[in-house]
Amino acid sequence: MAVYTEVTDEALRAFLADYDLGGLIAFRGIAEGVENSNYALRTERGDFILTLYEKRVDPAELPYFLGLMEHLAGRGLPCPTPVHGRDGAALRALCGRPAAICTFLEGVWPRRVRPEHLAPLGAALARLHAAGEGFAVVRPNALGPAGWAPLLDGCRERGNEVAPGLIAELDERLAAILAAWPAPGALPMGQIHADLFPDNVFFLADSDGRPRLSGLIDFYFACTDLLAYDVAVCLNAWCFEPDGSFNVTKARALVGAYAAIRPLSDAERAALPVLCRGAAIRFLLTRLYDWTHTPPGALVTRKDPLEYLRKLRFFAHATGAEAIGA
Amino acid sequence: MAVYTEVTDEALRAFLADYDLGGLIAFRGIAEGVENSNYALRTERGDFILTLYEKRVDPAELPYFLGLMEHLAGRGLPCPTPVHGRDGAALRALCGRPAAICTFLEGVWPRRVRPEHLAPLGAALARLHAAGEGFAVVRPNALGPAGWAPLLDGCRERGNEVAPGLIAELDERLAAILAAWPAPGALPMGQIHADLFPDNVFFLADSDGRPRLSGLIDFYFACTDLLAYDVAVCLNAWCFEPDGSFNVTKARALVGAYAAIRPLSDAERAALPVLCRGAAIRFLLTRLYDWTHTPPGALVTRKDPLEYLRKLRFFAHATGAEAIGA
Repeated sequence: MAVYTEVTDEALRAFLADYDLGGLIAFRGIAEGVENSNYALRTERGDFILTLYEKRVDPAELPYFLGLMEHLAGRGLPCPTPVHGRDGAALRALCGRPAAICTFLEGVWPRRVRPEHLAPLGAALARLHAAGEGFAVVRPNALGPAGWAPLLDGCRERGNEVAPGLIAELDERLAAILAAWPAPGALPMGQIHADLFPDNVFFLADSDGRPRLSGLIDFYFACTDLLAYDVAVCLNAWCFEPDGSFNVTKARALVGAYAAIRPLSDAERAALPVLCRGAAIRFLLTRLYDWTHTPPGALVTRKDPLEYLRKLRFFAHATGAEAIGA
Repeated sequence: MAVYTEVTDEALRAFLADYDLGGLIAFRGIAEGVENSNYALRTERGDFILTLYEKRVDPAELPYFLGLMEHLAGRGLPCPTPVHGRDGAALRALCGRPAAICTFLEGVWPRRVRPEHLAPLGAALARLHAAGEGFAVVRPNALGPAGWAPLLDGCRERGNEVAPGLIAELDERLAAILAAWPAPGALPMGQIHADLFPDNVFFLADSDGRPRLSGLIDFYFACTDLLAYDVAVCLNAWCFEPDGSFNVTKARALVGAYAAIRPLSDAERAALPVLCRGAAIRFLLTRLYDWTHTPPGALVTRKDPLEYLRKLRFFAHATGAEAIGA
């Protein structure tokens, strides 16, 4: 479910009157994304996505997200571009929520990741990092290393209900990750996506049937952090098979295509295993927090935290960068 | 939530290969409808809706629904038209479910019904009834009068948890409705939509801002029943204000525009009050059944049965057709 706010047609027409988009042709809720309400919007000027930002997004951070998307799209990255109203503003209000219209991107996200998806993904991630240069706003990563211990504390009361001994294991693993984490300034930083899961990446098929990346969406976890951490997020999100095994062919394709556009330094390659452990514990902790704080009857899909415990354990045993395809 | 079945991109491409629709351009889940999985599909040939029929739809009934839509669309009604595969079949299989592609209809369903919506609605309903002539397949109304007593029996155990004394009141009201129900053959029958709620009707704005009806969707409750019963469903679904009051201006606009195209006989007008009570108890009973049989934590939105108890009581006091706008 990704429509939390129903927009009346009168409110929508009044909202659209502030844009130069022509008449309304179609408007359908989209069943994707979990944080915000998303609508597919068609006007006389074309197709767009209307997003109403719900309570999990801090309105104060929206100018960063929208500004970054506009900056990246302006440099040729295939990501949504905020559409400005007649008064120049892209961030507006609708039904009491912050709201924005962005361009529509063609493509289909891969429900089943194939090795051929990984090189286009790696290349696009490197282009995203390059395109982010010159966007001067800094947004610290709220779900970065400094946020993990408080998240774990929030799971302490009920976390062991998910798996016996889980909290003790996470205490130990988190301490090891934080001890090995790169020192500030040791690795290149920049604007990162930080949540580049398959459902945030669209592909079209080339004439020969090979996937061509057509869009990167959902920049609402984007932040300013280690560029190589974004690679580690993708290794977590794209390179494990449904049976839990790590597909090193996918990992090599991802890292190889990334490095062909933005070379990884020796220090970045050496840090990738701990960055992967960090990314694994980040998704484990947010899922565990949601799992232990969401009433079982709530109208949201709870994602399995233990999927990321298995990934964390895998990366904990992968001491060299080669073992993870780097 | 209206995506119950995730379609992998490989399965989708293989499915589309059986159609003459060109390459896949976009594919997004739609957050509308509750019975089936619906996707907005864009190919080189245009926009379509892909529906996977989930377990609440009997596969044996799909040829009726698809055949009726094709029949109505062929007679100019703005409803989805099933798209045939290369082998001529419109009803196919995808991910282990019956599936069909239909044409996409422009328009926006009215989140807030205004009086101006009712005349276009009434006219379209009359055209639907006229266009249905010549479609010879008979589908009895499974949720018609013969189905109401069994539905009420299914609610007997827990129905009074929703409102004290509810079951006794419904026993009494149902008996009165069935006693007053038109005898077989007394009123004209035909193909009816039977579920023409606002979210199944799309409108565009004319150049002068007035709503122009652009589409009727979701024919999966369609059946062969009293034509005037469809008017009664719309009086229930479109003519009450959020505060529970009955808007007779809307009712008159609906019935007047309907009768201008398909005149209502004196017998049909006289029967409208009991048909309205029947439609009210039909939606009350299915909602009550879902309410008392759905675990509170299930991933579905339960609709309030008591909304239709209030409507049922209103129509029980409206003894003459004039009181309800007819």
